[in-house]
Amino acid sequence: MRNVYVLGVGVTKVGEHWNSSLRDLFVEASLKAINDAEISLSDIQALYVGNMCSGYLQGQESLACLMATWLGLKGISASKIEAACGSGGMAFHQAYLAIASGLYDCVLVGGVEKLTDVVTKDALSALIMADDQEYVASTGITFAGLNALVYREYMRKYGVKQEDIALFPVHCHKYAKNNPYAQFPFEITLEQVLASPLVADPIHLLESSPLSDGAAAIVLSSDKFIKGKENIVKVEASTAATDILSPHERDDITTLYATIEAAKRAYKLAKVEPKDIDVLEVHDAYSILGVIHLEDLGFAEKGKGVELIKEGQIEKDGKIPTNLSGGLKARGHPVGATGVYQLVEITWQLRNDAGKNQVQGAEIGLAQNVGGVGSYVTINILRRLR
Amino acid sequence: MRNVYVLGVGVTKVGEHWNSSLRDLFVEASLKAINDAEISLSDIQALYVGNMCSGYLQGQESLACLMATWLGLKGISASKIEAACGSGGMAFHQAYLAIASGLYDCVLVGGVEKLTDVVTKDALSALIMADDQEYVASTGITFAGLNALVYREYMRKYGVKQEDIALFPVHCHKYAKNNPYAQFPFEITLEQVLASPLVADPIHLLESSPLSDGAAAIVLSSDKFIKGKENIVKVEASTAATDILSPHERDDITTLYATIEAAKRAYKLAKVEPKDIDVLEVHDAYSILGVIHLEDLGFAEKGKGVELIKEGQIEKDGKIPTNLSGGLKARGHPVGATGVYQLVEITWQLRNDAGKNQVQGAEIGLAQNVGGVGSYVTINILRRLR
Repeated sequence: MRNVYVLGVGVTKVGEHWNSSLRDLFVEASLKAINDAEISLSDIQALYVGNMCSGYLQGQESLACLMATWLGLKGISASKIEAACGSGGMAFHQAYLAIASGLYDCVLVGGVEKLTDVVTKDALSALIMADDQEYVASTGITFAGLNALVYREYMRKYGVKQEDIALFPVHCHKYAKNNPYAQFPFEITLEQVLASPLVADPIHLLESSPLSDGAAAIVLSSDKFIKGKENIVKVEASTAATDILSPHERDDITTLYATIEAAKRAYKLAKVEPKDIDVLEVHDAYSILGVIHLEDLGFAEKGKGVELIKEGQIEKDGKIPTNLSGGLKARGHPVGATGVYQLVEITWQLRNDAGKNQVQGAEIGLAQNVGGVGSYVTINILRRLR
Repeated sequence: MRNVYVLGVGVTKVGEHWNSSLRDLFVEASLKAINDAEISLSDIQALYVGNMCSGYLQGQESLACLMATWLGLKGISASKIEAACGSGGMAFHQAYLAIASGLYDCVLVGGVEKLTDVVTKDALSALIMADDQEYVASTGITFAGLNALVYREYMRKYGVKQEDIALFPVHCHKYAKNNPYAQFPFEITLEQVLASPLVADPIHLLESSPLSDGAAAIVLSSDKFIKGKENIVKVEASTAATDILSPHERDDITTLYATIEAAKRAYKLAKVEPKDIDVLEVHDAYSILGVIHLEDLGFAEKGKGVELIKEGQIEKDGKIPTNLSGGLKARGHPVGATGVYQLVEITWQLRNDAGKNQVQGAEIGLAQNVGGVGSYVTINILRRLR
């Protein structure tokens, strides 16, 4: 396999963008990434767009050609990649394969989603498309409802208290306040989390990622483009795995098999272990998932994820600094873009560009992006090259 | 780049499948391809699903994980690929890159679409998502309407008569009658075509591809799987290109720039010229497109495509046997599956499995799949290995 590098990155602020359409957001993030990469538009040979809901919410498919057109990229290859809430990480995986294959030397990958400002459809009906429409969505359950079942079962099985699990969003908000692109750049307290309304019992509003609009983009290249350039980050491993689609069909809903499988492959390809990871972004769609991911990725034993948080190990100066972007909860969760945001944020850390949230000397970073309730997981491991 | 081979293929009959859901169709075609490839389920490492409308028409995303689950493929990588009506060919392109990259050795790629038996939405609103929802679909134009503009301009520019262009569907139906998977396996006459109702002036109903349900699947592999196997077909080239999304923004709508661009790259990679192609499948969504594709692919000068048809050159024993499957018009056009159907049909030809429509000694085949009005084009060139 050929080497693949992150040449440039860009994002929009996450939020409710009532004055920007899908294309506006995507073009803004992409032009930032292209400028950051110091390439010209004509260098780009292929485009990958991660997105989940454009067909349902905006009545727009052909999304990748639309974005190529608005970027002035006539002639290139272009595809939309859908893997539910994991569409961004999966688009990155496909873009990685495109370079690794040898057919393309310079590829733009971006994720975009617009969940607000949709007048005729509702975002909750869009998000439950992540599970089975005929056998699960038809019961009326929401996506939060599915995760509430996971939350309850996890507390029952491991005897962990909600007050501890709810520390995860408090942690995320603490760092989001230093992230200029975060949707909610302010701190919250544990008391506020536990006093906030229930979204789906036992999930409180402040344990749940928000509805967000946003776009993030990355320029990937082969060796051909990195000569003489500073701030180069290498993709050490890119893996993807799936589980049985619907949680009710699985043996154990307190662990995500797809995370374990994708991580095992990624650690092997990158020749690293969890202890080698300097900075981590996990897919905390709900507080309980943040905790479960820390365990499934190998940073804590099952049932012990909250201990890491309580010991300060996921802080900036801890053993495994986690979600210093603010995570899905506080940076925001523009569904199909989230996986790409995570990889931009890891890149900033490895390039020493993370400002107040910088982990000193970070060299290796890992991003975990999830689609559905662990239906898809992509793991991407990046390393600072120079 | 590593070599990539077609190991097995399978399709469902195209038609109105009122008793089969998206997943039923996909699983049927996939199991046929897996059996044809003589592999076991556990050999498959990644799945690519080509589909355009599932979010809009079925309220179902997470489509690739759903299909992996119903096939019993827990753990593998899985992605849905969307490129409008070119989703199938684009999914094949991504599956090709996955093997070529070296990360995967055995990949299943399938296309699936269900346009009939949809109660709350209409297929025409789904198909216009191939163009720009905000600037084009909002005018009320249909997808047939866009192609009608191309048809009119082509006749004006080149002085070609409708009676000649309308020979294309007559040709397709002539061969569809021997295709057991075709939606319309019977002959039609030129008089019937020209007397059929107008869909969008000047396009007659019998010049227009139908609304179809169906699925097609292919197993691709690296060298690792071909030892000792017969009937192996090699992917000589796989390319993809885009044009400006909307036809009204282009300089010339009587030629598809994306076809020319993707074909140029494919001929170069495969080291062949148009004269070397033994069997051809083109994306004849409307009669006029069949004619335009023959020209853009290099088999006729601009404005002279109909001459090929009149001279019998696209017949089974002609210079460039074309759409012997029946094409989109008569085999049917299950949108996101069409590009995969074409590649299955080319494979059958190269394996001498095409029955009454067999082109004697066919060694090299080309499939051209289009999304939108030439917004996306994928070109895949296959060659019989043994």
